[in-house]
Amino acid sequence: MSAAALEAFVAEAGRTGNASSLHSAGRAARRTVEESRESVAAALGARPSEVIFTGGGTESDNLAIKGIFWGRRSQDARRTRVLVSAVEHHAVLDPAFWLAGHAGAEITLLPVDGEGLVDLEALRAELAAHADEVALVSVMWANNEVGTVQPVREVVRIAHRYGVPVHTDAVQAVGQVEVDFAASGVDALTVTGHKLGGPVGVGALLARRDLPLEAVSHGGGQERGVRSGTLDAAAIRAFAVALGEAAAAREERAATLGALRDELVAGVRRVVPDAVLRGPDPHATTPSGAPARLPANAHFTFPGAEGDSLLYLLDSAGVQASTGSACQAGVPQPSHVLLAMGVSETDARGALRFSLGATSTHDDVTRLLAALPQVADRARAAGLVAARPLSGGVA
Amino acid sequence: MSAAALEAFVAEAGRTGNASSLHSAGRAARRTVEESRESVAAALGARPSEVIFTGGGTESDNLAIKGIFWGRRSQDARRTRVLVSAVEHHAVLDPAFWLAGHAGAEITLLPVDGEGLVDLEALRAELAAHADEVALVSVMWANNEVGTVQPVREVVRIAHRYGVPVHTDAVQAVGQVEVDFAASGVDALTVTGHKLGGPVGVGALLARRDLPLEAVSHGGGQERGVRSGTLDAAAIRAFAVALGEAAAAREERAATLGALRDELVAGVRRVVPDAVLRGPDPHATTPSGAPARLPANAHFTFPGAEGDSLLYLLDSAGVQASTGSACQAGVPQPSHVLLAMGVSETDARGALRFSLGATSTHDDVTRLLAALPQVADRARAAGLVAARPLSGGVA
Repeated sequence: MSAAALEAFVAEAGRTGNASSLHSAGRAARRTVEESRESVAAALGARPSEVIFTGGGTESDNLAIKGIFWGRRSQDARRTRVLVSAVEHHAVLDPAFWLAGHAGAEITLLPVDGEGLVDLEALRAELAAHADEVALVSVMWANNEVGTVQPVREVVRIAHRYGVPVHTDAVQAVGQVEVDFAASGVDALTVTGHKLGGPVGVGALLARRDLPLEAVSHGGGQERGVRSGTLDAAAIRAFAVALGEAAAAREERAATLGALRDELVAGVRRVVPDAVLRGPDPHATTPSGAPARLPANAHFTFPGAEGDSLLYLLDSAGVQASTGSACQAGVPQPSHVLLAMGVSETDARGALRFSLGATSTHDDVTRLLAALPQVADRARAAGLVAARPLSGGVA
Repeated sequence: MSAAALEAFVAEAGRTGNASSLHSAGRAARRTVEESRESVAAALGARPSEVIFTGGGTESDNLAIKGIFWGRRSQDARRTRVLVSAVEHHAVLDPAFWLAGHAGAEITLLPVDGEGLVDLEALRAELAAHADEVALVSVMWANNEVGTVQPVREVVRIAHRYGVPVHTDAVQAVGQVEVDFAASGVDALTVTGHKLGGPVGVGALLARRDLPLEAVSHGGGQERGVRSGTLDAAAIRAFAVALGEAAAAREERAATLGALRDELVAGVRRVVPDAVLRGPDPHATTPSGAPARLPANAHFTFPGAEGDSLLYLLDSAGVQASTGSACQAGVPQPSHVLLAMGVSETDARGALRFSLGATSTHDDVTRLLAALPQVADRARAAGLVAARPLSGGVA
């Protein structure tokens, strides 16, 4: 959490007052919430009335997928299809598959290319064949594992031609690339606090007012009746402060982190020549000239090594990395993102993701590069032992 | 938020590390979460493995009602009935009615008597007639508006005879009366942070391990796969600290607040003789000898006055009260709790709830009693004007 965000949290947490109460303490808390709503809207190119505060990215994604599905289906019972890219976060995929099991939804996973870019032709074909049956399309703004920035405006252009709303999970993108809700044309957008220097446990779904959206959390009827639960004024204010800081610092930070990432990528290729960078080339741009990859992301597979071994060995050397999504950590399955990109199961097991942040330095990269060759060798040796059948080991 | 809870929050928020990550910062956050889980369990008579951290009371109630409904129904498709008391919080009622609209549930509202106590005979009769079709029973530990403590152990005894699980919303009860998960026999229990001096936006559902419970928020699979979303280590730690404090101070605080409440009740009756106390007599006890009413709660109706007028007039005099549940504030409808207790719609409109807290003092009560007679008179005069037909006013 950034210092300013924490300060805002503490200032607000010292007060009492439920933002839904009518007495003066309640009205003061309500003012905090509404000022934060205006600030969040301004930072993301949205209107205040389009901001629905939630408990974070997972809840926003659940609300978008289920809420739009139910909202659209209640208008027209035929609309049971949900189109999502194959590389979505589990917070999008799992609600979609839950709807398939519990509410008669039919899920189409839109394929991606070798760099993780969603196949627009597949989207066009699906909509041309079934537009009347499609409840929504969800394609993330940028991928959390391999950093691929998706052609969200193109997705919107295609979907809107068929009158189908689009949701995008922009959890990874906000603060790293320019995210403008109105300009993007999307109907709903997920953002969360803790990726931006804000608190965990708070986020928002931006949603156009004309979007059919049913509640997922039911109760007191807060947030236009779409998201019940006592408004968390302190966390909301801290989130707004952190988002404001992140938006103001974005360009400069993206340049700094991008340069550091380039150094990291070049260095890893130098010290472990057979490491394979996954996701778009760091210098590629989208047709509109924007970066094709998140500036803070680097992702490699190391042939013959297990990602978990790499992770633990690097951790001992003081370098903290991830094999994929933290949410799936400890799950001994290759990443669905890499598999969708056509990476083999064997290669996908050797995945390691490096995320740079506001506090990352040249020295951090130097320390990583110094440790990596030996770590990769040891992880490969461990991989060979693990791959040997147990009986062979005993014999 | 209590000073100790805020301090715990700040200490944790200064660290980085996703509790689901495998690197050392992630493991440190995980330790914080697991130590907090042990502490929450100990304070509530549960096992650590029975604690599912959530984003607060509303989310815990949604998870309990929908999660148990889906879990039980997937074991046996006939189990579509949900029995809830008529005085539940909207965070219980609304998910139940949503299930009726979206998942074929059939809701039975268990009636209550004039003091808000649930009718155990009605529960017995429903179970005797339909036990095989009942997914769950939900009866709150104590009511948030009129303070009635429900006979939860009796509810459990009856429901378990038929093999039906029981959920209880103990949001208002924890910290005010003794709440012991194991001793109560309930299968699931809702608790939230901000009623105890902890942060908003964090709470827990306690749930027995053998309870069929499906996820409501889908994604990364945190919290046994039942509650996805990045674990909010800072808020969880602050919640655990606040709950520990509240449990340790409970008996002393209940005695202090109970005495202050008695003073308030006697005073209101003295200065506004026709005010009617709603809910149980403050000195009544349950068959087991526990208080029949929450010690910090006082609730009156003022004949001929509108609750909102009372509230605003008192607020000008520096006294902050509520008409009912903050979650329903601004909704110009009489409380469903009072209506279920047999209060007429007209009388229910004059409702005012006083909640005492850790910082409440004798002087606060004195200030209320000094202001109340004039406030009640003015609110009644406003009520008479409002009740006069518009044409009459013009003529």
